[in-house]
Amino acid sequence: MRVSPGAGGLPPNVALAQEVNRYIAAAVPRMHEFGIRVIELEEGRVVAEVPLVGNTNHLGTMYAGTLFAVAEMLGGALVWPNFDFGRYYSTVKEVLIGYCRPAHTDIRATATLDTDTIARLYRDVATAGRAEYVVDAILTDCSGEVVATSRGTYQVRAH
Amino acid sequence: MRVSPGAGGLPPNVALAQEVNRYIAAAVPRMHEFGIRVIELEEGRVVAEVPLVGNTNHLGTMYAGTLFAVAEMLGGALVWPNFDFGRYYSTVKEVLIGYCRPAHTDIRATATLDTDTIARLYRDVATAGRAEYVVDAILTDCSGEVVATSRGTYQVRAH
Repeated sequence: MRVSPGAGGLPPNVALAQEVNRYIAAAVPRMHEFGIRVIELEEGRVVAEVPLVGNTNHLGTMYAGTLFAVAEMLGGALVWPNFDFGRYYSTVKEVLIGYCRPAHTDIRATATLDTDTIARLYRDVATAGRAEYVVDAILTDCSGEVVATSRGTYQVRAH
Repeated sequence: MRVSPGAGGLPPNVALAQEVNRYIAAAVPRMHEFGIRVIELEEGRVVAEVPLVGNTNHLGTMYAGTLFAVAEMLGGALVWPNFDFGRYYSTVKEVLIGYCRPAHTDIRATATLDTDTIARLYRDVATAGRAEYVVDAILTDCSGEVVATSRGTYQVRAH
């Protein structure tokens, strides 16, 4: 695992989140423009947030595309602590997103990867130059109600 | 069906496309900011486009969220010719999107609804105040290669 120093006295999971946010701002500016920010990132767990302001739809609730964006990006962010993005990259193959209820507030999205899966990713990348993994994301509003869930299939691949 | 006059001598399907683009710019600004534009809209058929410029990812190809956005919006646009959006609105319940190959150019997204489904939507909305429908979208690059496909489940509902 690559470990960022806790720059400026930040907890390591916040420092790592800021690192991936800087990468996203430069590499996928549209994602950054949504206001999507990773707020916690550690091996096997990521949390991101996105504001309602600037992301409303025709009903005044959060636009479906913004909810998709904050869900989808978790899959890439999750492998950031494990793979050097100068040598490897993540890509998405498929996403299913289900919208449970309207999102009336800022939204938090969370996903995890278990240690067995992470170990398999290392093995598959070492032997085949690529590894596939599935990420389930849960999106909640400010009161903790689930507004959407997603399941994405991703790959991490050597450049 | 609501029919827009061919303003400025435009073909009706182009005039209707411009009408829905104006609605989107006001109602879902984030979608408009992607550069997504409906270019043809008639009863049962919609075509939209989105530029690569401004929508690239960490690989220089089109960002997965942008491809989702142009696919997802087709479901709402498809019922625009049939339902007055002052009295009815569309909403999305679920979308599955599959990415087939990297998108290296501007992208065109197309979807259709058959006449039997449209007739059922009118009936269901009249009797239940809402109707559910499924839309399959195909996204192609400038050489006509399919870069992604999606299947979305939508509702049109009375306000």
